[in-house]
Amino acid sequence: MAVRFALLGGGRIGKVHAKAIGGNPDAKLVAVADAMPQAAEAIATAYGAQVRSIDQIEAAGDIDAVAICTPTDTHADLIERFARAGKAIFCEKPVDLSVARVRQCLKTVEDTGATLMIGFNRRFDPHFRAVRRAIDEGRIGTVEMVQIVSRDPGPPPAGFIRSSGGIFRDMTIHDFDMARFLLGEEPDTVFATASVLVDPEIGRLGDFDSASVTLTTPSGKHCSISNSRRAAYGYDQRIEVHGSKGAVAAENQRPVSIEVATADGYVRPPLHDFFMTRYTEAYAAEIATLVAALKAGTKPSPTGADGLAALLLAEAALKSVAEGRAVKVAEISA
Amino acid sequence: MAVRFALLGGGRIGKVHAKAIGGNPDAKLVAVADAMPQAAEAIATAYGAQVRSIDQIEAAGDIDAVAICTPTDTHADLIERFARAGKAIFCEKPVDLSVARVRQCLKTVEDTGATLMIGFNRRFDPHFRAVRRAIDEGRIGTVEMVQIVSRDPGPPPAGFIRSSGGIFRDMTIHDFDMARFLLGEEPDTVFATASVLVDPEIGRLGDFDSASVTLTTPSGKHCSISNSRRAAYGYDQRIEVHGSKGAVAAENQRPVSIEVATADGYVRPPLHDFFMTRYTEAYAAEIATLVAALKAGTKPSPTGADGLAALLLAEAALKSVAEGRAVKVAEISA
Amino acid sequence: MAVRFALLGGGRIGKVHAKAIGGNPDAKLVAVADAMPQAAEAIATAYGAQVRSIDQIEAAGDIDAVAICTPTDTHADLIERFARAGKAIFCEKPVDLSVARVRQCLKTVEDTGATLMIGFNRRFDPHFRAVRRAIDEGRIGTVEMVQIVSRDPGPPPAGFIRSSGGIFRDMTIHDFDMARFLLGEEPDTVFATASVLVDPEIGRLGDFDSASVTLTTPSGKHCSISNSRRAAYGYDQRIEVHGSKGAVAAENQRPVSIEVATADGYVRPPLHDFFMTRYTEAYAAEIATLVAALKAGTKPSPTGADGLAALLLAEAALKSVAEGRAVKVAEISA
Amino acid sequence: MAVRFALLGGGRIGKVHAKAIGGNPDAKLVAVADAMPQAAEAIATAYGAQVRSIDQIEAAGDIDAVAICTPTDTHADLIERFARAGKAIFCEKPVDLSVARVRQCLKTVEDTGATLMIGFNRRFDPHFRAVRRAIDEGRIGTVEMVQIVSRDPGPPPAGFIRSSGGIFRDMTIHDFDMARFLLGEEPDTVFATASVLVDPEIGRLGDFDSASVTLTTPSGKHCSISNSRRAAYGYDQRIEVHGSKGAVAAENQRPVSIEVATADGYVRPPLHDFFMTRYTEAYAAEIATLVAALKAGTKPSPTGADGLAALLLAEAALKSVAEGRAVKVAEISA
Repeated sequence: MAVRFALLGGGRIGKVHAKAIGGNPDAKLVAVADAMPQAAEAIATAYGAQVRSIDQIEAAGDIDAVAICTPTDTHADLIERFARAGKAIFCEKPVDLSVARVRQCLKTVEDTGATLMIGFNRRFDPHFRAVRRAIDEGRIGTVEMVQIVSRDPGPPPAGFIRSSGGIFRDMTIHDFDMARFLLGEEPDTVFATASVLVDPEIGRLGDFDSASVTLTTPSGKHCSISNSRRAAYGYDQRIEVHGSKGAVAAENQRPVSIEVATADGYVRPPLHDFFMTRYTEAYAAEIATLVAALKAGTKPSPTGADGLAALLLAEAALKSVAEGRAVKVAEISA
Repeated sequence: MAVRFALLGGGRIGKVHAKAIGGNPDAKLVAVADAMPQAAEAIATAYGAQVRSIDQIEAAGDIDAVAICTPTDTHADLIERFARAGKAIFCEKPVDLSVARVRQCLKTVEDTGATLMIGFNRRFDPHFRAVRRAIDEGRIGTVEMVQIVSRDPGPPPAGFIRSSGGIFRDMTIHDFDMARFLLGEEPDTVFATASVLVDPEIGRLGDFDSASVTLTTPSGKHCSISNSRRAAYGYDQRIEVHGSKGAVAAENQRPVSIEVATADGYVRPPLHDFFMTRYTEAYAAEIATLVAALKAGTKPSPTGADGLAALLLAEAALKSVAEGRAVKVAEISA
Repeated sequence: MAVRFALLGGGRIGKVHAKAIGGNPDAKLVAVADAMPQAAEAIATAYGAQVRSIDQIEAAGDIDAVAICTPTDTHADLIERFARAGKAIFCEKPVDLSVARVRQCLKTVEDTGATLMIGFNRRFDPHFRAVRRAIDEGRIGTVEMVQIVSRDPGPPPAGFIRSSGGIFRDMTIHDFDMARFLLGEEPDTVFATASVLVDPEIGRLGDFDSASVTLTTPSGKHCSISNSRRAAYGYDQRIEVHGSKGAVAAENQRPVSIEVATADGYVRPPLHDFFMTRYTEAYAAEIATLVAALKAGTKPSPTGADGLAALLLAEAALKSVAEGRAVKVAEISA
Repeated sequence: MAVRFALLGGGRIGKVHAKAIGGNPDAKLVAVADAMPQAAEAIATAYGAQVRSIDQIEAAGDIDAVAICTPTDTHADLIERFARAGKAIFCEKPVDLSVARVRQCLKTVEDTGATLMIGFNRRFDPHFRAVRRAIDEGRIGTVEMVQIVSRDPGPPPAGFIRSSGGIFRDMTIHDFDMARFLLGEEPDTVFATASVLVDPEIGRLGDFDSASVTLTTPSGKHCSISNSRRAAYGYDQRIEVHGSKGAVAAENQRPVSIEVATADGYVRPPLHDFFMTRYTEAYAAEIATLVAALKAGTKPSPTGADGLAALLLAEAALKSVAEGRAVKVAEISA
C-alpha cells in the first residue's frame, strides 16, 4: 500500500517535494496545508490531494507521513507535534537555528520513537552517491582530503537572508553534511573565513556571501569547502575526494550537453540554473528512500542527529570567523 | 482536459510510452491491449487503466488517441483502422517494411484526415534538439556535413532480426530521420556499405550488423552514418554538424558522471545501457508534443511522410549495398 | 656520431623539418638548398648550416641523408638521383602524382638498395601512436571500424590547389595512410563522395573541398573519412577506432587548455591553427625515427611502398567520385 | 648576440634549465659547475659548454648570466657573490629559508643594481598564463576567489625533506606565488592546516605531507590551496579563479590524450609524472623571459621581492599551523 503523505508548506521547496511524492508509485499525496490557500490549492489540484489545515492533518487517520516545508522557525514545533501524533516526519533542514532547541526537539523525537528524516537532498544525488560508492568499494583507498565547491547562481533576496540563519546555517550546512557523508570520520575542528564580495546588503544584514571553510578530523583528514552566493555560469556543485590510491570527482551537471565550435572557440551551455532542476533526481530518490524505509519498518537516514551534527559545524564556523581561529566542535556542543 | 490514450502493445517499447503518457499531466492512459493478457494487465494496474481488446478500443467513446506499439507487420493495418475510427494515432516506426504498403496506408490517413505521428524519438532528445536549435539560430552558418554515430550495446536476438526488416529499416532508419532533421535539405543519393562483423548468425539471416552510409543532397551536403550492433561501452549516440561558420556536437550521455583517477588513469563509467534509459526525456517530450498538438488542434510532426522518406533512404541503402554503387532515392520512390 | 642532413627546399614544410633536425641531438643540418637563395640562407643561419646547390649536395662526402621538401613534381627525380648517390632519403608525400612514375621511382630505390622514408607525419603523433598502441595491446579487441575526421582550418590558395593533385592526393592521402596504419588489414575497396561547399574557385579548378570516403577490407572492416577544407574552430584532427571489445579515440589538441565560464556558457579556446603547431611533436619523432634507423642500420617506416599504397587509394577515390560506385583498388593498381 | 649563461648545479632542476637555455636561440650555455664533476661533464658535453669552477665563472669575461640550481643553503651566498660580480642572476626558489637572510641578500642585490629573477616557473606555463590573460582581459570581472590544487605524484625521499624547509617553504611556496600572481591584491592573512597522511617518516622529521591553506586579502578575496605529497594518478596541477562575471580554470595536462572505452568504462591515461615533463614549456618560457629582458635592458619578473613575499606567506602558514589561528603576514615581516 502506498505511503500517504501530507505536505506542510507549498512554497518553492514544498512544490519540489510534492512532485517527488506524486511521482513515486509507492507514495500518495493526500493533503496539503499552507498559510496561503491558493498555494495549497494549486498543489492539491495538480496531485489529486485535499487542502487541509495543520490541525486536520494532525488528527487525520489517512495520513502516514508529513513533509515539513514551512519556514525554518516552525520546524521544531511541527516535528514535535507530529512526532507526538505518531506520523513519520520528513523535515527540510535545518531543524532549528538554535542548537539547544534542536537538542530539545530531537529528545522529543527519541521519546516518542518517531521516525524523522532530514532533507539533506545531496546525499541522494546519483552522481554524489556514485562518489560515495567508489569510496566504499575501496577504489581510492583511505580517504584523505575532500574538496567541495558549492556556489549559488546569485544571491537570495534580503528578506530570505534575514531569516536564513546566515550562510553557514543556510547554505554551507549542505556541504557540512556532504563532508560528514564522505570523510568517513567525524570532523572535530572548523576553520572558516567569510567575507562580503557579492552584495553589500548581505553584509549590512550581518551575513556573508563568500566563505572558505576547512574541516579537519582527529586523524588529520581535511575537507575544504568553497562557497559563494554568485556563479554567473549556473549552479556550481562539485565534489572531489582524494584517497591513498587515487581520487574520485563528480562533475557539474548541465541541462543540455552540446558544444558549439566556431572561430571564437568551443562553447558549452551554462549549468543548471538552480537546485530545483539540478537535484530533481535527488529529491525523487530522497522521498523514495523514506517511503522504502517506512514500508520496511526501518529508520531512514539522514536522521535528526545528522541535522544536529551539521548545525554544530555551522555554529563552529561562525565562531571561527568571529575569533579568527580554528574552533573545536566540542566547544560548541558542550 | 487530458488527452485519453489507449496503448496497443505492452512490450518493451509499449512500456516506455505508457510511462511517458502516465507522467504527462495533460494525458491519461485509459486502456491497454496486448495479445498477452498479463502484459496488458501489468501496465493497466500501474497506470490505473483498463485492459481492453482492440475492437473495444476502436469502438470506445472515451479514447482520443492510440499509441501503436505492436509488431511492425500490424502497424499499417492498425493505422488505417484507427484513422477510420477517428482516433489520433501515434505509431512506432516503421509504418511498414514495404514502400507500397506505406504509401497505401498514408493515402488512407490523408483521406480520413486523421492525425498520424511517427515515433522518431530522437528528434525530441533535449541534446539533439539543442543541436538543431543551434543550427536554426545560425550559430554554425550554412550546414555542410553531418556525422552520426549510432551503435547499439549488443546485437538483438535472432528472432528480432528475422522480423526487423534488416539493419537499415530497423536501426539506421532513426539516423536517416536525424539526417533529414539536421541537413536542411532532402538527401537524394545514398551510398551504403555493410558487413557482418559482430554475429555470424545475423549474416546467416541475410542481414548486416555493421554499416557505413553516406547521404548526399542536390547542393552537395554530406551526411555520414556509422552503425554497429556492438558497443561494449554502452549505447553510443553522437551527432555532429559542420557548417560554414563552425560545428555543433551532441556528446554521449551517461547515467552518472563521476570520474575515478588512480595509477591506472582516469575512469568514467560506461554510457547508458540502451534506449529506454538514454532517451527517457525524449520519449516524454515526444508524447508531450503529440498531446500539445491535439489540444491545440494542430498536426504534430514527424508525420507519416517523414516515416516514408526515411524508409525510402533505407531501401536505397539496401540497393546500394547490393549493387556497390550510389543509388538515387528517386530510383526507389519511382 | 650525428646523422648529417641536407635539406632540399626551404619552404613551409622545409622549415618544419629543419627545426626537427636541428632539435635532434643525433642529427645535424649540414646543408640547405633552395631555388630562392634567401630562404636557404635564413635556414642555414638559424641552424649553423651551409647554403649549397643540389649538385654540391649530391657530390658531398659530409652528407648522410637528404630531406626532400621541394615541390611535388620534383620528388621522384630527386629520390632517384639521391638513391643513386647513396644518400638516405626522407621525402615528403607524395612521391609523385602518377602511379606509374611512383612505381618506376620505387624500382630505382629498390635496385640501388637506398633507404627511403615517406613523410606521413601523423604516424608519429604521440596521441595517434597511443591509439595504435592501445590496439596492439588488445585493449579494444579486433578492429572493426575506423573513423577519421580531418578538416583544415581554411582552403589553400588557388595556386596551391592547381599543383596539389587534388584533395584526395594532397589531403586525404594522410587519412588513407592512417587508415592503413590502424585497420590492421589492407583496404581493397573505396567509395568516395566529394563536393564543393567551401570555395567555388576550387570547383573551377576541377577539385573538391569536401569529401566523405568509405574504405572496406576483404574481411568487412570499414573506415570512414570525413574531410573539409574548412573548420572555423581550427585544425580538426580526430581518430576513433572501434573493435570487438571497445573503442579508442584521440581527441583534438589545443594550444592552451583553459575554460572560461560566464553567463554565456563555458568557453574553451579554438584548436591549433594548422599542422605546423599541431604536429610539432610528430615531426620531431618522425626525424628521430629516421635517425635511429640510420644509426642502427635498419630500414625506417613508412616506406615508399606505403606512399604508393596511399596513392592507389587516392586514385581509387577519384575514380569512385567520377563513376558513382565502389572501386576496387585492384582496378587501379592493375 | 646570444646571452651567455653559466649553470651552477647540474642536478635534476639544473638539467631542466640547461635544456631551456640550450633550446633558446638567443641564449648559449657556456659553462657548468657542479660539485660532482661527472654531472657537470655530462651537461657540458650535451650542450657544447665547458666545465668550470664557481671561481672561474665568477671571474669570467664571457659569462653574462648565471642560473643558480645548487642546494638551497647556498642560494643567498651565490646571489650576493654574482651580484657583486656584475652577472645577471636566475635563482631557483627559495632565496633562503630564513627571512632575515633573504632580506639581507636582497639588500645586496639592490645595492649592486644586479638583475635577479626567481624561478617561479608556473607563472610561465602557457595554460596558467592564459588564465591570467583571461583575468586581465576582464572576462571574469573582478577576481573574488582563487582555488589552487597542487599535488605531487609521491613523497620525496627523507633526505630531501630534511633540507627542504618543509612543505610550505618547498612546495606550497609555488602556490603562494600563483595566488599573488592571480589575486590581484596582496594576501595579508594566512590560515593553514597540515597533517601527516602519506608518510609517517615525514612526520618524524617534523614536516607535513598534506596541507590546506586559506589566504585572504584586505578587501576580502580568498585563495584556497590544497596540497598533498601523494597523487596516484600523476602530477595534479589545477587552478581556478572566480570573479564577479564568471570563472576561468586551467585543467590538468597529460602526455597523451586518448580515451579507451570498454565495458569497464572510459579510461584516459594518468597525468604527467612530474614537473620536468609537466612544465617543459614553462621552463623554456621562463628562460626566454629572462633572455628577452637582458637583451632589452629591462628587469625581469618575478623578482627577489616576489621570492620574499612568497616566503613570508610560508612562514605565516607555519605559524598558523603551530598556533591554530589566522596569522597576519605583518606579524612575520615585522
